[in-house]
Amino acid sequence: MASSVTAAILVIGDEILSGRTKDKNIGYIAEYLTNIGIELREVRVVPDVEDEIVAAVNALRARYTYLFTTGGIGPTHDDITADSVAKAVGVPIDVDPRAVAMMRERYKPEDLNEARLRMARIPHGADLIDNPISRAPGFRIENVIVMAGVPSIMQAMLDEVAPKLKTGIRMLSETVRADAREGDIGTQLGQIAKANPEVAIGSYPFFDPQHGPNTNVVLRARDPQKLAPATRAVEDMLQRVRGAQSSGG
Amino acid sequence: MASSVTAAILVIGDEILSGRTKDKNIGYIAEYLTNIGIELREVRVVPDVEDEIVAAVNALRARYTYLFTTGGIGPTHDDITADSVAKAVGVPIDVDPRAVAMMRERYKPEDLNEARLRMARIPHGADLIDNPISRAPGFRIENVIVMAGVPSIMQAMLDEVAPKLKTGIRMLSETVRADAREGDIGTQLGQIAKANPEVAIGSYPFFDPQHGPNTNVVLRARDPQKLAPATRAVEDMLQRVRGAQSSGG
Repeated sequence: MASSVTAAILVIGDEILSGRTKDKNIGYIAEYLTNIGIELREVRVVPDVEDEIVAAVNALRARYTYLFTTGGIGPTHDDITADSVAKAVGVPIDVDPRAVAMMRERYKPEDLNEARLRMARIPHGADLIDNPISRAPGFRIENVIVMAGVPSIMQAMLDEVAPKLKTGIRMLSETVRADAREGDIGTQLGQIAKANPEVAIGSYPFFDPQHGPNTNVVLRARDPQKLAPATRAVEDMLQRVRGAQSSGG
Repeated sequence: MASSVTAAILVIGDEILSGRTKDKNIGYIAEYLTNIGIELREVRVVPDVEDEIVAAVNALRARYTYLFTTGGIGPTHDDITADSVAKAVGVPIDVDPRAVAMMRERYKPEDLNEARLRMARIPHGADLIDNPISRAPGFRIENVIVMAGVPSIMQAMLDEVAPKLKTGIRMLSETVRADAREGDIGTQLGQIAKANPEVAIGSYPFFDPQHGPNTNVVLRARDPQKLAPATRAVEDMLQRVRGAQSSGG
């Protein structure tokens, strides 16, 4: 795991914390990063409060290779992400002519009012992230990647920025359906996990309409040479457990 | 806002961070707490790593009235929430006879194996939270409320614990459909927000199949006497903006 590239997500928005809007970005970004070999290690959700955003940005950008933020880059007074990130990084912020030029592709000059120009406020030194949907760009400054909260726009921005990111060795995974209850395999699974320290083994119960309580065992590792024997060990163990159960043992 | 009761959620689980499982608990708890007058102020998601859980539990329980955790209380080696919370709070943990008694209602004596008895490990001094679905309980210790990750079980536990919580004055909210684009009302909305500091005003763009880009303005306050005039101010402003637009102004 020496060469792993890590990330955190910071979701910014009162509407998520009040429950009014249900977040759809965390799961999407999590899966996306896993697929390109970036290990998501932490997520935080904070309100539209500058001090909270600044503190979270600084805690997370110091700790992980990348920090992805979503939300708070629209045209209204409660959109304070860009200013907060500028403050966290310690650079000035102003209306950026490159961002204005992008927005001109969509808005008539008379529509580029004070509110919309908020969306062109970009911290000094940032690279813009194109927004093919509604034009107002995201940006990247140092290791902080600032994206929209609207899922379709966030997804387009992520596609835009992903090819420019450093990625690690992709995490491989195997899912083994146990056909056994989690509590019947827990001890054995723990032993296998202990014997295979470079493989992360997770156990996820689910209800199977045909068999009742069932379990998926998920094994994850970067090295296929480590993953294969651990997967085999799980399969062998499951066969033993099921054999013992069906013989009433 | 003096008497507000606050909360944080800590979601524990590698499967959320890898994107394999999409969290369904954050939005549910957020809405639930809002409805009973508890203000959710922060959410974190951390992996199944003891140091990470301990650090997050201690950061969040110190800062908010309540901390709700989800996940990591099952029967397998990767379920380390109870032990981590005990460590964070600084109390010993052991198999709790009360929890075992609850689990006996579901499991035959021979099924209460080492793995399942992990689910009866409860920090000393905790109150149990009944689990009407699969029996293995959650618990509350000090201001930390530890619940399952499986949504149906988490929801039942939340119903169980909620009546025992201190609640604040419920946040009231009004949603005004703007029939205007967010960028056309941003400046005016900011002025209204400034003039009504005790009302939180949020602006949420959405795409309306009939009118195209549209906006919901959401006003939130505990005092109806503050909420009403701010809502009226937004409605009056919207009428002026729409009037100006339809007259080509």
